[in-house]
Amino acid sequence: MSPDRTPLDLATLHAGYTTGRFTPLDVIEQVIAATAEDPHHAWIHRRPAEALRADARALMDRPDAATLPLYGVPFAIKDNIDLAGVPTTAGCPAYAYTPERSAFVVQRLIDAGAIPVGKTNLDQFATGLNGTRSPYGACRNALDPALVSGGSSSGSSVSVALGQVSFSLGTDTAGSGRVPAAFNQLVGTKPTCGLLSASGVVPACRTLDTISLFTLTAEDAAQVLAVAQGLDEADAYSVAPQPHGWDFGRADPAQVRLGVPLPAQRRFTDPAWAAGFEAAVAQAQALGVTLVALDFEPLLEVARLLYEGPWVAERYQAIRPFIDSQPEAVFPVTRQITLGGATPLAADAFAAQYRLKALQRRCDALWHQVDLVLAPTAPGHPSIQAMLAEPVARNSELGWYTNFMNLLGYAAVAVPAARVDGSLGAGANPFGVTFFAPAHQDVPLLRWAARWQHALRASADPAAGNAAALATTLGATGWPHPAARQVPPQPEPTFPAGWVEVAVCGAHLSGQPLNPQLTHRGAKLVASTTTAPDYRLIALADGKRPGLIRVAPGQGHAIEVEVWSLPATQFGSFVAGIPAPLGIGRTRLADGREVCGFIAEPVAEEGATEISGFGGWRAWRASLG
Amino acid sequence: MSPDRTPLDLATLHAGYTTGRFTPLDVIEQVIAATAEDPHHAWIHRRPAEALRADARALMDRPDAATLPLYGVPFAIKDNIDLAGVPTTAGCPAYAYTPERSAFVVQRLIDAGAIPVGKTNLDQFATGLNGTRSPYGACRNALDPALVSGGSSSGSSVSVALGQVSFSLGTDTAGSGRVPAAFNQLVGTKPTCGLLSASGVVPACRTLDTISLFTLTAEDAAQVLAVAQGLDEADAYSVAPQPHGWDFGRADPAQVRLGVPLPAQRRFTDPAWAAGFEAAVAQAQALGVTLVALDFEPLLEVARLLYEGPWVAERYQAIRPFIDSQPEAVFPVTRQITLGGATPLAADAFAAQYRLKALQRRCDALWHQVDLVLAPTAPGHPSIQAMLAEPVARNSELGWYTNFMNLLGYAAVAVPAARVDGSLGAGANPFGVTFFAPAHQDVPLLRWAARWQHALRASADPAAGNAAALATTLGATGWPHPAARQVPPQPEPTFPAGWVEVAVCGAHLSGQPLNPQLTHRGAKLVASTTTAPDYRLIALADGKRPGLIRVAPGQGHAIEVEVWSLPATQFGSFVAGIPAPLGIGRTRLADGREVCGFIAEPVAEEGATEISGFGGWRAWRASLG
Repeated sequence: MSPDRTPLDLATLHAGYTTGRFTPLDVIEQVIAATAEDPHHAWIHRRPAEALRADARALMDRPDAATLPLYGVPFAIKDNIDLAGVPTTAGCPAYAYTPERSAFVVQRLIDAGAIPVGKTNLDQFATGLNGTRSPYGACRNALDPALVSGGSSSGSSVSVALGQVSFSLGTDTAGSGRVPAAFNQLVGTKPTCGLLSASGVVPACRTLDTISLFTLTAEDAAQVLAVAQGLDEADAYSVAPQPHGWDFGRADPAQVRLGVPLPAQRRFTDPAWAAGFEAAVAQAQALGVTLVALDFEPLLEVARLLYEGPWVAERYQAIRPFIDSQPEAVFPVTRQITLGGATPLAADAFAAQYRLKALQRRCDALWHQVDLVLAPTAPGHPSIQAMLAEPVARNSELGWYTNFMNLLGYAAVAVPAARVDGSLGAGANPFGVTFFAPAHQDVPLLRWAARWQHALRASADPAAGNAAALATTLGATGWPHPAARQVPPQPEPTFPAGWVEVAVCGAHLSGQPLNPQLTHRGAKLVASTTTAPDYRLIALADGKRPGLIRVAPGQGHAIEVEVWSLPATQFGSFVAGIPAPLGIGRTRLADGREVCGFIAEPVAEEGATEISGFGGWRAWRASLG
Repeated sequence: MSPDRTPLDLATLHAGYTTGRFTPLDVIEQVIAATAEDPHHAWIHRRPAEALRADARALMDRPDAATLPLYGVPFAIKDNIDLAGVPTTAGCPAYAYTPERSAFVVQRLIDAGAIPVGKTNLDQFATGLNGTRSPYGACRNALDPALVSGGSSSGSSVSVALGQVSFSLGTDTAGSGRVPAAFNQLVGTKPTCGLLSASGVVPACRTLDTISLFTLTAEDAAQVLAVAQGLDEADAYSVAPQPHGWDFGRADPAQVRLGVPLPAQRRFTDPAWAAGFEAAVAQAQALGVTLVALDFEPLLEVARLLYEGPWVAERYQAIRPFIDSQPEAVFPVTRQITLGGATPLAADAFAAQYRLKALQRRCDALWHQVDLVLAPTAPGHPSIQAMLAEPVARNSELGWYTNFMNLLGYAAVAVPAARVDGSLGAGANPFGVTFFAPAHQDVPLLRWAARWQHALRASADPAAGNAAALATTLGATGWPHPAARQVPPQPEPTFPAGWVEVAVCGAHLSGQPLNPQLTHRGAKLVASTTTAPDYRLIALADGKRPGLIRVAPGQGHAIEVEVWSLPATQFGSFVAGIPAPLGIGRTRLADGREVCGFIAEPVAEEGATEISGFGGWRAWRASLG
């Protein structure tokens, strides 16, 4: 749309700031210009231009500017999240209050150098997935104003998609952080619940809410998440970041098992979205993953449980005194839905929790079959007109593939996929899919999402203007997808350290007798390689085990090893089971990296046989015939 | 009461069976005789004598009899737990049904050789802590029939206390497995919720219920728990046994931090119970533990939340169609309480869950201060007459110290303590206290309880008939407490293996710079000792680390080491952080045991200094001045 503007993705900003090509003040001037008008109804409150300029100047004056991870990054805040001194409306003027302190997450972002631009429009009280339920105006889609923006984080998604800010905060209870991402060609990250503190957030369903992130790229989401996450003692639902599980985002795709819904369970309101999803499945297959068709029925039953069950009582409880005393102040459809939460009994709530518990066990069993799942983000993309005609029914459809996520505690990221011809609207129709995985797989998911975006980019042919090419421009900006960057690592928790790589050279190699000690612990083969040429290999006196003996660098042999990755939590019992004279120290690999690996005590040499010349344990064993 | 009868504790039965002094049939004849009359109203259904004899004979005919862990052990079942072919009444005749299958836990016990004797009386629908709320008669205390038995597992406790069976199954939602133990001088084990499957149990509050165990000794409880526990896929709340945390039950008491309520927060309805608790605190102190006075207010607030909050709706939900259609079939006070669960709203239930979540964080913080907690089991012991006069108020009092346990997910064991003179009743007044700890500390708790019982036994003077001596007879039987036995270990889960012992000899020793790598991982110092005399000690070239080099047995030095125990889940990250040329292998200790310990690669010798003569790293460092 405005290719002359500076793209606001974090890589471009960082490069521009470090090279001095532009300053935060320059970027803020662009933001001020871009947000001067708001025909999309994306904003409820825009901070005054002078306040934004003052923030930019103050940042530029900071001696520690270079150390700020989000230095000069403009962002938007959904208006159910507090920004100190600015009213929080939750989309309801009569409800508004002006907080003295910013929300925990907002403050962390500001402390990291990000600049809050304003508060964005939303489905009132975050109740809705469509973006039309606001007295501040139905939010218009960034790519086609006739289509819904998606909600409830409507303005947050649209402001990023229009290139007004670099990223935004939404909230996600039932899909409010993912559906608008799909509809506006963005990355929508719904982190593991609790990673982003809810302090300073107007609750929707407190047991299910999470702050979410809208970004132009998956790398940007990882960078913002790393800053924003952290334990908040004031929020009982807050959790500390945990070590993630197996990192499918960095693995050889041939090792990755990707679940997809059984074809019969793929349900769409728009044939173009059905076709888009088939194309996305094909694209995933082209990456080399193992596709596994999953029975989605337990997930879909959980999804139905959310809206048909008693969790709506949480929405009522969240604003109970307010809606009881001023029902007329609430947006009509929101009032109708919320007051529906005033009638279920506590007994019903417990019964639904029992049902959820039973379904949780069935759903969690999916993780024995797959590492992550690919699902549609939504079944179709309605127009604003269609939405207004049937505001409850059409909204419910939008949550078919999103409603189950937080009830089950999974992490999810919605990503753009190759666009398809839509049956609605005159403009370009965005399209997107969602990848999800168990709790605390946020970083692997974002690495995977980055890989997905770059694969899409690589397959795009800008000259032909093909579907993939359109999908690789950012939001509605026309800015091209930037080159691949490293997804920043998860801040290392003190203990445990997540996964550990260990080099094995003998009976633990694939196919050898002790290999199950690794596989039973959930270990994955990462590499088949050799050591640096710094080793001797001996066969211990028992003939059953080798000893790897380090000599001076370059003065030895390169010995065959396999590198396995296993959870740090499982590594200890593996180590504890190794009999003398072997143990675990460090092994230097052919590529110069040092990983955990087998070492031998000096006494191991007694009665041992020198077998270095064979280059490895397997070759020596084979030589024995 | 009947000292001529064979004591039914598991040690005595096992010894009698293996020596051939008596057979299961002999024991069953004793059981039949002992249960012929039931003046205590302990039973709802006693299996016919011939059926019991047939079970005993069938067991004796089994070729695998010697392998059955509960061979010939008679037990009772609370009548809200299914036994195939026998009606389950839950204390309400109109509700009764006859199950085709036994409850999951009952079947495991039968499969292990235990013989079900019958179904026991209870506070109807397990609603109550006192034992009077039953159309089958108010259950009478085993030691003094004028006193309440405690409930809701009234008959289960009384049948064990009278020496009619070896152990019994109760259920415990708010204290029903602990209060009756205190009142009948038994060990009442309330395991971590989920360890004992709820399949085949009439629910009270499904999110909080657990089967519980009444036994004569803590060792018996550990033995029954080991058989009964296990993951049940059919019960969504079932959990697999987990490795336990630090085993305070086996530790030097000087290392154990025992929490007790602040004196101002100790609240009793009976001064004798107040005095008894003070005596129990003194006894704990005499064991050598470090006492830590804890602010119990968050626990007590959780306790109040259970009965004042919406969890009673679970009781309503559990029998909703039944009580809605036949309210008159329900015991009057039970009906009143249960129908109180029909009015709270789902919104109230969620609000209470938010409050619980906040309190959970405060309560869990206690575990940074202490390893386990000692609390009163009840504030006093009312007479049946007093209970019937004020059935709700008096019952509520009984739960002051028990109601919070399952809401917080802790494990608890109620144990007899030195008896005190009571203000009620003519007979002997039993007394008891409860130890509790975080979830999955069941085995350490039972080890601790066994230690407690044996300390009580050791301090008793039977000739003087002192308080401790009376408390060390079993239940109301007059049988003496048997000699100490090993608490059977928790069945070892495949991975992780629980805790790992590691010998350290350098910078990880207490007071040395890297010692926090152990303490931050929750490691505990187990021993300060030396290696076997099989080692050399060198200082690496960097002068900062030693290398322990194994030589031929007896041909080296005994080197100073400390043995630390740390969770296997934390050990892996510890190992992964050790730089070359050191690593973790095995170290032989002075006592001949081999534990994990530091080893060195042969290259460690390069530039190293021989320091074996100093006997240890500390001595060498000290010599440097």
